[in-house]
Amino acid sequence: MDGATTTTAGPSTEQRGSTRAPLAPHPARLLPSDPTQRAIARRLHDSVRDLPLISPHGHVDAALLDADQPFSDPASLLVTPDHYVTRLLHAHGVPLNELGLPDRAGAPVAEPREVWRTFCAHWHHFLGTATRQWLESELHDVLGVRWQPSAENADELYDELVAKLAEPALRPRALYESFNLAVLATTDDPADDLRHHRALAADPTWSGRVVPTFRPDRYLDATSGEWPKALEVLAEASGVDTGSYQGLVRALEARRDFFREHGATATDHGAPDPEMVFLPPAEAARLFDSVRSGTATPEDARTLSRQLLGENARMSSEDGLVMALHTGSFRNHHAPSFARFGADTGHDIPTRVDFTRALRPVLERFGTHPRFQAVVFTLDETAFSRELAPLAGFYPSLYLGAPWWFLDAPRAMRRFRDAITETAGFHRGSGFIDDTRGFCSIPARHDTARRVDAGYLASLVAEHVLSEQDAAAVLRDLNDQLPKRAFGL
Amino acid sequence: MDGATTTTAGPSTEQRGSTRAPLAPHPARLLPSDPTQRAIARRLHDSVRDLPLISPHGHVDAALLDADQPFSDPASLLVTPDHYVTRLLHAHGVPLNELGLPDRAGAPVAEPREVWRTFCAHWHHFLGTATRQWLESELHDVLGVRWQPSAENADELYDELVAKLAEPALRPRALYESFNLAVLATTDDPADDLRHHRALAADPTWSGRVVPTFRPDRYLDATSGEWPKALEVLAEASGVDTGSYQGLVRALEARRDFFREHGATATDHGAPDPEMVFLPPAEAARLFDSVRSGTATPEDARTLSRQLLGENARMSSEDGLVMALHTGSFRNHHAPSFARFGADTGHDIPTRVDFTRALRPVLERFGTHPRFQAVVFTLDETAFSRELAPLAGFYPSLYLGAPWWFLDAPRAMRRFRDAITETAGFHRGSGFIDDTRGFCSIPARHDTARRVDAGYLASLVAEHVLSEQDAAAVLRDLNDQLPKRAFGL
Amino acid sequence: MDGATTTTAGPSTEQRGSTRAPLAPHPARLLPSDPTQRAIARRLHDSVRDLPLISPHGHVDAALLDADQPFSDPASLLVTPDHYVTRLLHAHGVPLNELGLPDRAGAPVAEPREVWRTFCAHWHHFLGTATRQWLESELHDVLGVRWQPSAENADELYDELVAKLAEPALRPRALYESFNLAVLATTDDPADDLRHHRALAADPTWSGRVVPTFRPDRYLDATSGEWPKALEVLAEASGVDTGSYQGLVRALEARRDFFREHGATATDHGAPDPEMVFLPPAEAARLFDSVRSGTATPEDARTLSRQLLGENARMSSEDGLVMALHTGSFRNHHAPSFARFGADTGHDIPTRVDFTRALRPVLERFGTHPRFQAVVFTLDETAFSRELAPLAGFYPSLYLGAPWWFLDAPRAMRRFRDAITETAGFHRGSGFIDDTRGFCSIPARHDTARRVDAGYLASLVAEHVLSEQDAAAVLRDLNDQLPKRAFGL
Repeated sequence: MDGATTTTAGPSTEQRGSTRAPLAPHPARLLPSDPTQRAIARRLHDSVRDLPLISPHGHVDAALLDADQPFSDPASLLVTPDHYVTRLLHAHGVPLNELGLPDRAGAPVAEPREVWRTFCAHWHHFLGTATRQWLESELHDVLGVRWQPSAENADELYDELVAKLAEPALRPRALYESFNLAVLATTDDPADDLRHHRALAADPTWSGRVVPTFRPDRYLDATSGEWPKALEVLAEASGVDTGSYQGLVRALEARRDFFREHGATATDHGAPDPEMVFLPPAEAARLFDSVRSGTATPEDARTLSRQLLGENARMSSEDGLVMALHTGSFRNHHAPSFARFGADTGHDIPTRVDFTRALRPVLERFGTHPRFQAVVFTLDETAFSRELAPLAGFYPSLYLGAPWWFLDAPRAMRRFRDAITETAGFHRGSGFIDDTRGFCSIPARHDTARRVDAGYLASLVAEHVLSEQDAAAVLRDLNDQLPKRAFGL
Repeated sequence: MDGATTTTAGPSTEQRGSTRAPLAPHPARLLPSDPTQRAIARRLHDSVRDLPLISPHGHVDAALLDADQPFSDPASLLVTPDHYVTRLLHAHGVPLNELGLPDRAGAPVAEPREVWRTFCAHWHHFLGTATRQWLESELHDVLGVRWQPSAENADELYDELVAKLAEPALRPRALYESFNLAVLATTDDPADDLRHHRALAADPTWSGRVVPTFRPDRYLDATSGEWPKALEVLAEASGVDTGSYQGLVRALEARRDFFREHGATATDHGAPDPEMVFLPPAEAARLFDSVRSGTATPEDARTLSRQLLGENARMSSEDGLVMALHTGSFRNHHAPSFARFGADTGHDIPTRVDFTRALRPVLERFGTHPRFQAVVFTLDETAFSRELAPLAGFYPSLYLGAPWWFLDAPRAMRRFRDAITETAGFHRGSGFIDDTRGFCSIPARHDTARRVDAGYLASLVAEHVLSEQDAAAVLRDLNDQLPKRAFGL
Repeated sequence: MDGATTTTAGPSTEQRGSTRAPLAPHPARLLPSDPTQRAIARRLHDSVRDLPLISPHGHVDAALLDADQPFSDPASLLVTPDHYVTRLLHAHGVPLNELGLPDRAGAPVAEPREVWRTFCAHWHHFLGTATRQWLESELHDVLGVRWQPSAENADELYDELVAKLAEPALRPRALYESFNLAVLATTDDPADDLRHHRALAADPTWSGRVVPTFRPDRYLDATSGEWPKALEVLAEASGVDTGSYQGLVRALEARRDFFREHGATATDHGAPDPEMVFLPPAEAARLFDSVRSGTATPEDARTLSRQLLGENARMSSEDGLVMALHTGSFRNHHAPSFARFGADTGHDIPTRVDFTRALRPVLERFGTHPRFQAVVFTLDETAFSRELAPLAGFYPSLYLGAPWWFLDAPRAMRRFRDAITETAGFHRGSGFIDDTRGFCSIPARHDTARRVDAGYLASLVAEHVLSEQDAAAVLRDLNDQLPKRAFGL
């Protein structure tokens, strides 16, 4: 650009990104700045800050706690496995292999130190994101870092963190204790033998609670080319022939029983949309046979998938496993990246979802059923006020899932409370769900939710909608009674 | 949950719900807590707090004021008939028959005192809801209650309220006066003989203004199995043969005339979506005949319903009755509850609505017509900024309806103002519409709207978008000129 | 309305609209009223208030600066050509011909003084709108007006402004300098010979930078009856036979080259939705032939339009012109007004748009392409958090366009920041785009955006999400580096 100079402004974020700045999360962070509200919010937050963490849904692996091996380095811990982090670095032009992701196309995979340097050089691109909030807390509170990452201090920080991660206090089981976790649910394949859950349960030196969650997506998704192979895997795990619709149903039921015996209280489903169908058995069987034999249309395969999802709802009404529904994500949006780097690499993109019509069949059957319980999540926040709060405001079996994925950030969580509370109150929700793959981010995520809820409640107290005592009682419920009840814990 | 204790937090809401707490709505409730904004908001609210209430659309029955009988008890007044209240209690596991709703399946219907006890025991579940705000105001301001309902004081409160409701000051006509109502519109079936409206008009002891509203849904919904019977009812009421399309049109016109003669200024329509079609007369006649004879497809029946809605728009352009459109509610979502308890029992669930395309045919015909006037409501708040404000910002015949139903709550009303004002200003809306079935909630609902609008305007004054004098003038318009003009009062 | 008096409230806006009130925009306007936030916001705003304005997309005509003729009167400058203004006056019952718009139906067209009187009499109807904010700034800062327009002072103001507009300081080139514009992009037809851009470039007395933008809508919209004629126009301008698909492609490429040679850095597309298709060449050729010969279905024509849009994406990946996508507007919604007054007269109405599915084909091809760059705009703000921030948070080639049209207003811009930042940060957006037809509104629009962003950042600083130094650096980036990079300037 010619002819124009920019003299009045200070440095750009890129210029600042190469200088040393302190890392010191403020005690009142994420609380409202209005003094009336902040004073209330601080008291409310203080009243729940030491409550044990209940984590009824997430993606931490039970093997992590079973093995209890030290973490090796900050890149492998905080960057490479976290698609919240890798996606934004990718958006700023960093290929995924340079972030440590193995590339089926054969591009060289960066070493952890190099990944860490790349991450630190892009630290300013995370300004304002939820990811930066969590990372600042993790770095400061869990890992003892006192300087913001930068291009300049990347190597120094890397060495410091490699040394620190070798300490006993930063091994997984020690962290579980220091995080004050009361319960941690994992997400598991129905064919999993749950050996790590069993090992933990049998270990007299371990006093935590780690429960599995039954996630049968690959066995229900009849539209996938991998489905026939999945049926074989399930047959082997269950000892039940999955060559017929009834066989598949019995195999799933057997694995649900196995999961329940090992502590599971919930199933989890990641379908593209929440539609379920409930066909007569003979029709379901015919559909199964035609899809399995390769003679069905794509629409038939989709119908069968919805039938199988509905079948799982029916099973929940019988065995009491809570049905968590995570729908509305267009998985693996960028086929070339999926081909090279696989799933969960940052390009699952939300879509619009209509719940009112889609959930009607299951709610007509089980919406007032005494044993059935569903927790419904959305990435389409317009559904909160329009559909989900009204549905949860009538159907006793339906709980409003906490803001999920792209929405589990301070302002989005605030919008969620604004959108649902006036219709459904506070007690028709699930309480906070961290849903994280980052073990070390668990305390930061829960604390963020507690701060946001404290701030929201403080705004209601300051506007005389409810008393501070009632607000404190609500905040306690949100962090204690609600997640326990929603997930049957 | 084992191994975790929760020692720092105070009592849960359930524990608090069984104790005695004062009921004392704060004078500044629902106003912003920022001191600058609050001072302005209080002055603004004060300037309109005594303006007469204009209620151009609602569901209070004219018979209530005609008969002027005392209300019997608090459960029959505040709980059983209010689907805002019953739906949330139902969501917390209370069957509708236990809330006093007659059950066609024969379950025992709870007595009012028992209903009241149930309601009081669940009072904490209403924390944060709009319903609790209204009920607190009604209980305090209209009924003189000074304690929050609780499981402990339910019986005491019940007895106190039964006694109080027998007092002359709490009979419907006395309340109409003390509410400072200037006009109250009811919602009526076209076949209604309006006897109560006529009786009130003829009563020299009555000086209020109660006008009917023409709501022809059942005669326009050709998809319903009840439609043929409805045509017979209309034929009898109008004295016009409804056995042909033109006959139905003439019968509707006759009843519109009758309603206008008795003070109606508006019609109201509760279609699933706002689509209208305008077929040539011969085609409409053929469609009518095929639907009536049972030979039409469901799609034909839907088209005929849309044709009849369009025909009512045409009538409005001729007789000047304002056309209120309430669309986007999926009525009677839970068929088993509908079968047992009938309509309006809490499971009408909003759906997404596209107005831009749906309203085009009617706006092309009547969007600049000098006599036509429509007030459009939505339960899909995404339409406010995207579609309705732009439409109302061009078409002189289209007015933006106030936030409706699930959206008539403080934060939702605030979002409404935020969403529409920058595009459409303040003067393309309807002003506040209470749309209530709860007679005693009318003052609370209007006061809530005045507070929210005062707070919104105060935020604009505090951010120097407009002057406080302009804000006061706008607030006056919202509560006086706008609803009168939008509904032709 | 009988029986009710309105004694407590002050005057209505209409009454106030006829009285004299000062026009004095407050220095802290549009900044948060919370004292903590305001102090930060003022410092942040101060740090960027003198940065040169970068205007990479808009609708000012290069002829205006080439000719440098004085503006004649305030109505022709501020009212008649601005569809933001005319649409709201039309909504308040003013026919478009009374606003100076030539009427093909022959109604008399009002003279500028009369148009100005009408505008002034309706000034109170703009309270709270973005348009009023811009007009207040233009009137005060550019035109030196010190009184709010009113029915009373309309003539006086008109005379004052006619005199003032004749002064040299208010001629277009002088305004360009005083606005501190660094670059101004126009929007141009591919057949345009860019004579005004060339004249400016060749003029030694002119030191500004005015670049064209390639907007090929009419050549891509194969659904339009005007398309065959457009092909002829393009053939003549390019010297390439457009009678075949490949010919049309070559003609477009030739004109893109011509535009690039004269400074263009971007193309702009106003399709109804963002869907693109990528057919094999032979299939595209067949489709072109069938549409051109009039034998194709409307669906075929739509597919061809999407193919041509995709072809432009492919061209961008080769010639490096940034692809700006403005989709989701239902153009010319009111056919009778279009027939009488033509396009861009206030009834382009937004519709819902799904980006996740629609953009997949182009992003699979070019989402990680090193030369391809797209800036995506929406009128459906629900897409910000749900689709556009997640897409821009993964694909390096996709930039989030600034809030556009109905959304380029203070509260809407604030919602935009709230919706995107937590997912995509600050650096995946385009920075502010004024997109205006009103030359004199450019400084007001940029200043509004700077104020809103300063206020948003101040709220994050006050909540300890980022430091004030980081906020200042972000604000500088938003107004300097980001628009330059997004539009290749």
